[in-house]
Amino acid sequence: MPRIVVDVMPKPEILDPQGKAIVGALPRLGFDAFSGVRQGKRFELNVDGEVTDAVLQQAREAAETLLSNPVIEDVVNVQVVED
Amino acid sequence: MPRIVVDVMPKPEILDPQGKAIVGALPRLGFDAFSGVRQGKRFELNVDGEVTDAVLQQAREAAETLLSNPVIEDVVNVQVVED
Repeated sequence: MPRIVVDVMPKPEILDPQGKAIVGALPRLGFDAFSGVRQGKRFELNVDGEVTDAVLQQAREAAETLLSNPVIEDVVNVQVVED
Repeated sequence: MPRIVVDVMPKPEILDPQGKAIVGALPRLGFDAFSGVRQGKRFELNVDGEVTDAVLQQAREAAETLLSNPVIEDVVNVQVVED
């Protein structure tokens, strides 16, 4: 069954307190290789049947309206994944 | 600056109330192409300098220990992205 993966990240200029918390915790756990962390969201939309252009267009619109808040978030990726 | 993207999803057998809420809202907004939705997390880890095998190994360990809860979540992807 094909899936459409939608990735949403906080805009670069928006403070990301979860990312900040993680970047503070990493060195305390011995992970010293990372200078910054941002946390976003990943959605997997299941599609029954074929992923047509119309379905992909629906996914893009849903990503911009329901799955993300365009004031503070960017949709960085809308991608079909075949299993 | 290279980044390492880590994707974490709820395990298939775990109830995902956010995904359920989204799949209920989609048809009300006119999006009728999707039969299921799962919501997970996407992390972007910034790396200063080169992504060596040791850095990637740190990212994999951090993904399994700090960025995900292995009881209820799977790390589905750890991937280097060059900008």
